Amino acid sequence: MIVRERPSPLRLFFVLRGTILPRVLPQVLGVAALSCAVVWASRRSAALHLPSASPAPLSLLAIALSIFLGFRNNACYDRWWEARKAWGALLIELRSLARDAIALLDDGGGEEPAAGRQLARRLVHRNIAFAYALVGHLRGQDLGEAISRFVEEPERGRVLASRNRPDALLRESARELASFRRDGRIADIPWQALGERLHSLSGVLAACERIRFTPLPFSYTILLHRTAYLFCLLLPFGLVDVLGWMTPVLAAAVAYTFFGLDALGDELEDPFGEAPNDLPLMALARTAEIGLLEALGEPLPEPLRPHDFILP
Amino acid sequence: MIVRERPSPLRLFFVLRGTILPRVLPQVLGVAALSCAVVWASRRSAALHLPSASPAPLSLLAIALSIFLGFRNNACYDRWWEARKAWGALLIELRSLARDAIALLDDGGGEEPAAGRQLARRLVHRNIAFAYALVGHLRGQDLGEAISRFVEEPERGRVLASRNRPDALLRESARELASFRRDGRIADIPWQALGERLHSLSGVLAACERIRFTPLPFSYTILLHRTAYLFCLLLPFGLVDVLGWMTPVLAAAVAYTFFGLDALGDELEDPFGEAPNDLPLMALARTAEIGLLEALGEPLPEPLRPHDFILP
Amino acid sequence: MIVRERPSPLRLFFVLRGTILPRVLPQVLGVAALSCAVVWASRRSAALHLPSASPAPLSLLAIALSIFLGFRNNACYDRWWEARKAWGALLIELRSLARDAIALLDDGGGEEPAAGRQLARRLVHRNIAFAYALVGHLRGQDLGEAISRFVEEPERGRVLASRNRPDALLRESARELASFRRDGRIADIPWQALGERLHSLSGVLAACERIRFTPLPFSYTILLHRTAYLFCLLLPFGLVDVLGWMTPVLAAAVAYTFFGLDALGDELEDPFGEAPNDLPLMALARTAEIGLLEALGEPLPEPLRPHDFILP
Amino acid sequence: MIVRERPSPLRLFFVLRGTILPRVLPQVLGVAALSCAVVWASRRSAALHLPSASPAPLSLLAIALSIFLGFRNNACYDRWWEARKAWGALLIELRSLARDAIALLDDGGGEEPAAGRQLARRLVHRNIAFAYALVGHLRGQDLGEAISRFVEEPERGRVLASRNRPDALLRESARELASFRRDGRIADIPWQALGERLHSLSGVLAACERIRFTPLPFSYTILLHRTAYLFCLLLPFGLVDVLGWMTPVLAAAVAYTFFGLDALGDELEDPFGEAPNDLPLMALARTAEIGLLEALGEPLPEPLRPHDFILP
Amino acid sequence: MIVRERPSPLRLFFVLRGTILPRVLPQVLGVAALSCAVVWASRRSAALHLPSASPAPLSLLAIALSIFLGFRNNACYDRWWEARKAWGALLIELRSLARDAIALLDDGGGEEPAAGRQLARRLVHRNIAFAYALVGHLRGQDLGEAISRFVEEPERGRVLASRNRPDALLRESARELASFRRDGRIADIPWQALGERLHSLSGVLAACERIRFTPLPFSYTILLHRTAYLFCLLLPFGLVDVLGWMTPVLAAAVAYTFFGLDALGDELEDPFGEAPNDLPLMALARTAEIGLLEALGEPLPEPLRPHDFILP
Repeated sequence: MIVRERPSPLRLFFVLRGTILPRVLPQVLGVAALSCAVVWASRRSAALHLPSASPAPLSLLAIALSIFLGFRNNACYDRWWEARKAWGALLIELRSLARDAIALLDDGGGEEPAAGRQLARRLVHRNIAFAYALVGHLRGQDLGEAISRFVEEPERGRVLASRNRPDALLRESARELASFRRDGRIADIPWQALGERLHSLSGVLAACERIRFTPLPFSYTILLHRTAYLFCLLLPFGLVDVLGWMTPVLAAAVAYTFFGLDALGDELEDPFGEAPNDLPLMALARTAEIGLLEALGEPLPEPLRPHDFILP
Repeated sequence: MIVRERPSPLRLFFVLRGTILPRVLPQVLGVAALSCAVVWASRRSAALHLPSASPAPLSLLAIALSIFLGFRNNACYDRWWEARKAWGALLIELRSLARDAIALLDDGGGEEPAAGRQLARRLVHRNIAFAYALVGHLRGQDLGEAISRFVEEPERGRVLASRNRPDALLRESARELASFRRDGRIADIPWQALGERLHSLSGVLAACERIRFTPLPFSYTILLHRTAYLFCLLLPFGLVDVLGWMTPVLAAAVAYTFFGLDALGDELEDPFGEAPNDLPLMALARTAEIGLLEALGEPLPEPLRPHDFILP
Repeated sequence: MIVRERPSPLRLFFVLRGTILPRVLPQVLGVAALSCAVVWASRRSAALHLPSASPAPLSLLAIALSIFLGFRNNACYDRWWEARKAWGALLIELRSLARDAIALLDDGGGEEPAAGRQLARRLVHRNIAFAYALVGHLRGQDLGEAISRFVEEPERGRVLASRNRPDALLRESARELASFRRDGRIADIPWQALGERLHSLSGVLAACERIRFTPLPFSYTILLHRTAYLFCLLLPFGLVDVLGWMTPVLAAAVAYTFFGLDALGDELEDPFGEAPNDLPLMALARTAEIGLLEALGEPLPEPLRPHDFILP
Repeated sequence: MIVRERPSPLRLFFVLRGTILPRVLPQVLGVAALSCAVVWASRRSAALHLPSASPAPLSLLAIALSIFLGFRNNACYDRWWEARKAWGALLIELRSLARDAIALLDDGGGEEPAAGRQLARRLVHRNIAFAYALVGHLRGQDLGEAISRFVEEPERGRVLASRNRPDALLRESARELASFRRDGRIADIPWQALGERLHSLSGVLAACERIRFTPLPFSYTILLHRTAYLFCLLLPFGLVDVLGWMTPVLAAAVAYTFFGLDALGDELEDPFGEAPNDLPLMALARTAEIGLLEALGEPLPEPLRPHDFILP
Repeated sequence: MIVRERPSPLRLFFVLRGTILPRVLPQVLGVAALSCAVVWASRRSAALHLPSASPAPLSLLAIALSIFLGFRNNACYDRWWEARKAWGALLIELRSLARDAIALLDDGGGEEPAAGRQLARRLVHRNIAFAYALVGHLRGQDLGEAISRFVEEPERGRVLASRNRPDALLRESARELASFRRDGRIADIPWQALGERLHSLSGVLAACERIRFTPLPFSYTILLHRTAYLFCLLLPFGLVDVLGWMTPVLAAAVAYTFFGLDALGDELEDPFGEAPNDLPLMALARTAEIGLLEALGEPLPEPLRPHDFILP
């Protein structure tokens, strides 16, 4: 995620880092070059020109393209925001689970409070591991080291060997809670309350998998890409008679807008990647780690800081 | 579902597989042919031409058509995404049910852990069958073989004979859980927790049936189809005076966009079919199968791979 | 609900049944007639004509009208889909209630399983009656015969005399469940689970009442109707100079689109009626009946079939 | 709320009651008068006219204005519909609370069923008072008389003295339920079920307060008002050369549409007022009263009828 | 939040306070000045002018810009409204928690009602502190004084030292509730009900953090800013030939609309700040304080009043 103050109007046109411009510059320059060629040719030969009065025919295409790009961008933004919501729910559930586990187990161990404290600590540590395992699952990274810091053998081996590590961690927690319940360490109702948290974490996992592994329908994306290209290639022909040598300027501006929004949609479509506009999963996992360790009263790491305006 | 890297701009125009182009090619070519005829005729006789200055009258229709197609596509995409969400919820509930059933029954059987393990295994296997039965229910396929792998007689017979197999499987699970509860194998609160999962699976089933068996209102679809055809048939008459022999190019581009979006909406409207853009139900069911078998510690099948870019 | 294959492009223009055309034909023909009169008059006298160059002034109105009609149609479609969701939730709750009631009461009656089975049967039958009572409540029909098939005296009398029959049926179920609980037939937790189902059915009832008895704000509807009429009446004057004798064709096409979408919104606004595009409440109630009777193992009626493409 | 059949096309233009026309008539007439002045002046002196060919520059503003008015109207309608949903949820919760309270307390009082019946009756009456107290809270009315009919002293005094009467009524119910629970009149699980209902009523109260006391951002409203005025004041200048003496007609039609939608948004923004399009809170409260009294078997008042097409 | 009656049409154009005008005035004046320069230059030399007939090419950009600004504003408004909903949920949960805690603990303390009352009071006071701590957390203010009024040592020290004070307060409440449960002061089911409230408060906290610390994607904002500037800079060139000296007027009106909506989106994007259109967090926290103190029967502070039309 890009963390940056909005630039002043003057500097607005010169900011590159974190903007979509570098990605679409080739296409924009291509349209500008085509426009120059069209203007030059039209000045040479009158045989090439398209309309003689207005770019109105193109506006038929422009309206449709704007509306559909708008809907697609909306859908992509919704995915991005839903992904952020899933990570927000992750924070909620992790904090509630830690809060309840510590309150219930820590002081409630009867004759052996230290043992209860150990159990709560293990449960909370496993949840920190869940956050990192989810980052790894969604980004296709290993992050085995971060997981190992919070999970001990032999559980560590089982988790690292699983095809779906976050799900394996949830299973370990469920097994432990069930054994607490069987041992009478925890009553039915608190067991149910903690189980609800695990169920919600399962929901976070599935929501993230859904967004990560189901892109927008391929045909939809391709159709809009093609229409955007078609439109921008026809644009200079439509503008040349009206605008003359101003054609490249306006054509490039229009191409920048349309290609930029198209590319932005691509970036938001998969919000779990490592592109500049993607969600800062590592920073969110670190936030979760800090909150849970503070609840345990253990030493806290520093929050992640943006590097070159980008939070990883 | 089409699983494919986005093609480079150059190849963008030549990709056919997984795009909407093959479906709308006849109509696009028809509009192009009509345009050629109109241009040819207008060159011959001045009596036929429509406007003398601009395609502005058509833009009245184009604006309305764009907006309404946009809304319809939005509605169809929402159906598609809601269907995917229902299958995501299916994964959540199946995993949670398996997690809890194994944790509760497996070690909690008291004197006979092996018996508890058998019960949990049967419950989990039935849930795998539920996923396949739902695929069959939504696609109008039999899939009796896949169901039979995970359900034993005499239950198998009852399920296969039912008109609504997924619902029959849920009833079997409910009956089994109620008998566990009566036998004291499972306490009230865990029984309630597992029952909530069955209730949610019932919700997934009803959501899928809703999307599958209630299309968009027929009149809505027909009205937009008709307007799209009307517009594209009038288009060449509106453009011919302004564009001359460029008319077929622009008319075909516009027709491609409008017919393409119309056809895409049709495809997304029923997300459970077997068209290329439909949801990969078989692959999702396989994912569920893998996750549940891993939870049981049983041998895992391979995930389904896309074949010719298409995941079934 | 109209159940019909999409017609081929050729037949598309000749389908009448289930489309909006019959409803808006008078207005469309009126606009065409007005256009003819305007063209004829403008050929006669030059004093009458509106613009001399383009229909641009009308496009100011067309843009606004398209956007607002689009939003209104969206709102109406959302009502329609929300109504379908409410009926989907009805299926979920009825099935879950039947599933749990049978599993809990049937075998759990201790010394008298037959008595428990009777109780479960009565509960499930009452739920079938709930579905039919809801249809009657929403459509202003009596349907007392369908309700009477599943509810016995003296309860039948109380229900039929109530002003809100579905609510009365829920009260009967709540009373019966409370007496089961008092008799020790059902423990607290299962009582709570079944009570949650009744609460959700109450939610379905209130959601349906909300959609049924609260139309879109009257002023909104009237404002859009008036703008649509104003626009279509001004249309021929705007087009006549540009299009000549093509004016009636385009004016009728535009009028068809705008009046059609306006009329379609009216039809979707109240999704519980008996118009062709309304929801097939009787068929949905029959689906519920079949599912519940199958759960009881009783003989099943046939599902309703579409008659003349329309499912009641 | 306006309860009225849709008028026929002929009468459509003459309906005033319940439409937005009376509210925006001054502005529409103002625009028409300005248009006349502009046409008259432009005929006199050629120095005043704006464009010489088309109203295209104005269309830049018209597009933006339409889209933003569309979004604002959508937001206002969403508020209106959300408010209706909150009142729908009120009905659900009141009915469920009454159903459960009567079923649980009435017959379950052990040795003294009449006492249990009294308790249930008091609880249900207090809920009717809640509905009227909410109307008063949202409309800034007293309605102390309606509340007093259903709540007895000394509770009545406490409630009427509170700054937030609906919340005070919920507190009274919570206190009574807690005392029932302490007395063993009601077990834990039913106490929890009834408590959930109170929590949901608390949610209804907060949702209504949110909509009532947080209008749309003031700047947003002002910006759109100003743009609408700017647009309509510039309109005659843009149309005069093209339309001549038709300018006032079209300018008034456009002004009616834009001002009408703007004013309609204002009306929907606060759905709890007493304007014709606002929600019929008194009628909804009466509906709740009838339903709850029927559940108690007490004599029923008549439902409220629309007066002069308006339901209060 | 701005609390102000809508001004009359006459005064509408002169209201500054609480509107977006002061923020965008420099840009609007800049566009007007540029327009004057362009008109002046075009009168001098014919070499500079852009189009010769219409501003149609610009409309291609205007449509796209309007639609995308519309979508962005919609997204920003949704954030703003979602933030308000989170604070509404805060009120719900705080009130329900106080209602249940007082009802359960106050009279239920068995031999020592006064002790139970003290416990309930401490719980409710801590919740008031939660509201103020959340304001401080979201606005980056200290507000330690407000928190200290309601939390006593040694808890006060722990909370003020925490990095996330609202979360620390929730942990304190969870610990206290767990100890009540261990001491038998509160049964399992009521403990669960109160725990659900804490969980929901945790959800409110995470929702607010999500909105506060995750702005819209930076690239999206920059792309729209750039397009808006590009459009407004090109605008005078497009209008000069058609409008002459009216160009500055219309260009300024268009610039005001587009820059205003862009700036308004910026303001709504972060609804927790102290800008005039932001949410009145202090007033909402005071509302919560009043409601909870009234529930305890303690002396009430005054609600906050708007100062210079602005509620803090």
